[in-house]
Amino acid sequence: MVAKAAPRNGATVEELTRRFGERVSTSPGVREHHGKDESYFPYAPPDAVVFAQSTEEVREIVKICARHKTPIIPYGTGTSLEGHILAIHGGICLDVSGMNKILRVNPEDLDVTVEAGVTRKTLNNHIKDTGLFFPIDPGADASLGGMASTRASGTNAVRYGTMRENVLGLTVVLADGRVIRTARRAKKSAAGYDLTRLFVGSEGTLCVITEVTLRLYGIPEQISSAVCPFPSVKAAIDTVIAIIQSGIPIARVELLGASLVEAVNKYSKLDHKVTPTLMFEFHGTKNYVAEQVAMVEAIAKENGGDNFRWAHTMEERNKLWQARHDAYFAGLQTRPGARAVSTDVCVPISRLAECIAETEADMRAASMPIHILGHVGDGNFHLIILIDPNDPKELHESHEINERLVNRALRLEGTCTGEHGVGMGKMDFLVAEHGDAISVMRALKKTLDPDNIMNPGKILRMN
Amino acid sequence: MVAKAAPRNGATVEELTRRFGERVSTSPGVREHHGKDESYFPYAPPDAVVFAQSTEEVREIVKICARHKTPIIPYGTGTSLEGHILAIHGGICLDVSGMNKILRVNPEDLDVTVEAGVTRKTLNNHIKDTGLFFPIDPGADASLGGMASTRASGTNAVRYGTMRENVLGLTVVLADGRVIRTARRAKKSAAGYDLTRLFVGSEGTLCVITEVTLRLYGIPEQISSAVCPFPSVKAAIDTVIAIIQSGIPIARVELLGASLVEAVNKYSKLDHKVTPTLMFEFHGTKNYVAEQVAMVEAIAKENGGDNFRWAHTMEERNKLWQARHDAYFAGLQTRPGARAVSTDVCVPISRLAECIAETEADMRAASMPIHILGHVGDGNFHLIILIDPNDPKELHESHEINERLVNRALRLEGTCTGEHGVGMGKMDFLVAEHGDAISVMRALKKTLDPDNIMNPGKILRMN
Repeated sequence: MVAKAAPRNGATVEELTRRFGERVSTSPGVREHHGKDESYFPYAPPDAVVFAQSTEEVREIVKICARHKTPIIPYGTGTSLEGHILAIHGGICLDVSGMNKILRVNPEDLDVTVEAGVTRKTLNNHIKDTGLFFPIDPGADASLGGMASTRASGTNAVRYGTMRENVLGLTVVLADGRVIRTARRAKKSAAGYDLTRLFVGSEGTLCVITEVTLRLYGIPEQISSAVCPFPSVKAAIDTVIAIIQSGIPIARVELLGASLVEAVNKYSKLDHKVTPTLMFEFHGTKNYVAEQVAMVEAIAKENGGDNFRWAHTMEERNKLWQARHDAYFAGLQTRPGARAVSTDVCVPISRLAECIAETEADMRAASMPIHILGHVGDGNFHLIILIDPNDPKELHESHEINERLVNRALRLEGTCTGEHGVGMGKMDFLVAEHGDAISVMRALKKTLDPDNIMNPGKILRMN
Repeated sequence: MVAKAAPRNGATVEELTRRFGERVSTSPGVREHHGKDESYFPYAPPDAVVFAQSTEEVREIVKICARHKTPIIPYGTGTSLEGHILAIHGGICLDVSGMNKILRVNPEDLDVTVEAGVTRKTLNNHIKDTGLFFPIDPGADASLGGMASTRASGTNAVRYGTMRENVLGLTVVLADGRVIRTARRAKKSAAGYDLTRLFVGSEGTLCVITEVTLRLYGIPEQISSAVCPFPSVKAAIDTVIAIIQSGIPIARVELLGASLVEAVNKYSKLDHKVTPTLMFEFHGTKNYVAEQVAMVEAIAKENGGDNFRWAHTMEERNKLWQARHDAYFAGLQTRPGARAVSTDVCVPISRLAECIAETEADMRAASMPIHILGHVGDGNFHLIILIDPNDPKELHESHEINERLVNRALRLEGTCTGEHGVGMGKMDFLVAEHGDAISVMRALKKTLDPDNIMNPGKILRMN
């Protein structure tokens, strides 16, 4: 339960209420809902939530907050895994979910401009008659503004890249209320500093994203998906490494550890063999997909994976990928009452087998259940560490496991976060990863947000 | 001729000379060589040239210059088309061409780390036995540091992207001598602000790039190239638009206007039909290339392009693309003694036909010869405006043509520069293109280079 009257930032809340009336809420329920995400971090509700409906309104809200030096936390769907939307320093949650208009589809240019609150599924539903789709798929039906702000990726990134590669331009509101457009619609440009990429991945700490222009792709003539069991995680990973090194443009290649296959079978009423498993997808012309499939089947066979189970119809395919997307929740159910600490390292593909082998030893030694899964084609994988939220020892152990994992990834020239972002939990790892470059990031933050009102306490410690 | 003794920045030159001895040159010949690029801008030699051999030396040089607030102009191969390396405010030219070591090839991760002075051809020669190649190809055999700093692209960008997509990380020296590495080798990362992309395209105004980590690609099993004449530029462009909109992953698709085909025929002793022409390249497996070729031939035929001339052997292919890369010089020869003003707009593909049609009218009305060519698959094309360098009226007319072209491109949601960068000539266009976002770029520049010593007078006016 959240305390009823929030004394913090009262003047800001009053001024916002005078301007936005009922679209400002201080009700405990609304604040509580906006004070948690899908991470294990404890609730941290904002002092108020304001529901914006346009870039101009965001500008007004930011200006009011700036005047009072009140923190601003942008909120899309609340599906962050790193505490991005937690109001740990109080302040105003700026909910953009009502900014859900698809502003302009340009099928002939393969691009679309949406308001920040549009979710990826809404976008794909809207454009399906154009023969185009937006591939980035982090599992959750996240808002596209949120996906841009965390540099999200997911299952299709191995083929289509991440939000870094697929955002063409942004409209953002800066900490002082300036509204800027970062780029025009040309596919490439050498015109000045790349503000688009600076803001993609800035997690609300530099600006509020209000509009996103995205690249679209033609829906492939042929899409084929399959599941293949392997005798070991190593055999599966060796298969993935060989596929990537051969340059086969695989659209998806996902690993699920044996325990997670078991959980998914139960959760989604499936009967996959309980063993380390790869899920594949191939995109292309009919012939080209057939070529890719033949090459991948040959590679898998060499590694003991010879029992491909194909999803032929769209319905079968959807079922397969729904099971993949439900894996996080399926995993969570294997320990009733648990919360998940999710790790997110990413390493060069040549170091992936080594990284996972060492990690498996750590998993075996742990006192709680841990599942492994990941976007292994990119060298990115997650542990789902299931902890009892009321047991500080378990939280501590999970942090130690994560810390060892991150240090391992850094030693192998990888990163502490492939796609979830830094948020609250990885600020120290970021320092370990970037060294002196952190001072540059801090300087940029200070320049664009001198009063540290934009999502403070995320990415960088500013004191 | 350059004046012999440079009184400017004498103390800096002295200090550099004490430290680097003969690797600091104030000889008129060396300074003159470093005071011009391939643009039409007048010579602007630096006060001295220092030849650096390591990141550590660059750091020392920058620190010395910073102490004296002396401008620093990084120099790779001098192939800029926008005056990037001209010492318009005097200062020290920091020549990194001696930093030409290929530091580390990781074939299994499809990446390579090179010193900034390594050229793209040197890299490709070095790695050819690995079965990999680096695709970005701006024509000139530019240094990879220079290509990163101007966000270069070229003929292969339609398939492989630009330096924006293909730089994995940089080592840079900042204005205060700090050395930072912007990213590790993981293929993707959500770890903090994207400093890599901030520095790619910053044209030496934020840092000196000393090392570049790049993505590599497998040399395709099959590469096929062809030349196809069209009845008009419009017919050629309509073909390109249809190809891009169909999602065919064409590796190259280049337009040459009729006058340039004639020039190329003469320069490279070829016999192509003198008419607007597309040059194509296809990459993939044997079967997949055959599929792509069939689709493209069908599209071209609908637009009156049915006379594909194929380059089957590697020798024929090289000859074809050498002719393309020589087109700039071939064009230059059509007016002896002329210098070229090169334009560089890029528009969304759906607006390309309109943009080129209006531009052709302008070309016909001009008083000097103008050639058209371009990377039309990206919506990017160039005019080569041949002016008499001694006739200010012609320079003025060429600027008016370029200004109309840029305004046209901006009206069509494009950019003033697709790949050459801003340099000296497009600073006002940059303001027109970005509006308030310029103030953000200025703030970033001020933060990272408070004394404006990093390549001053390029990209942004700082006063």
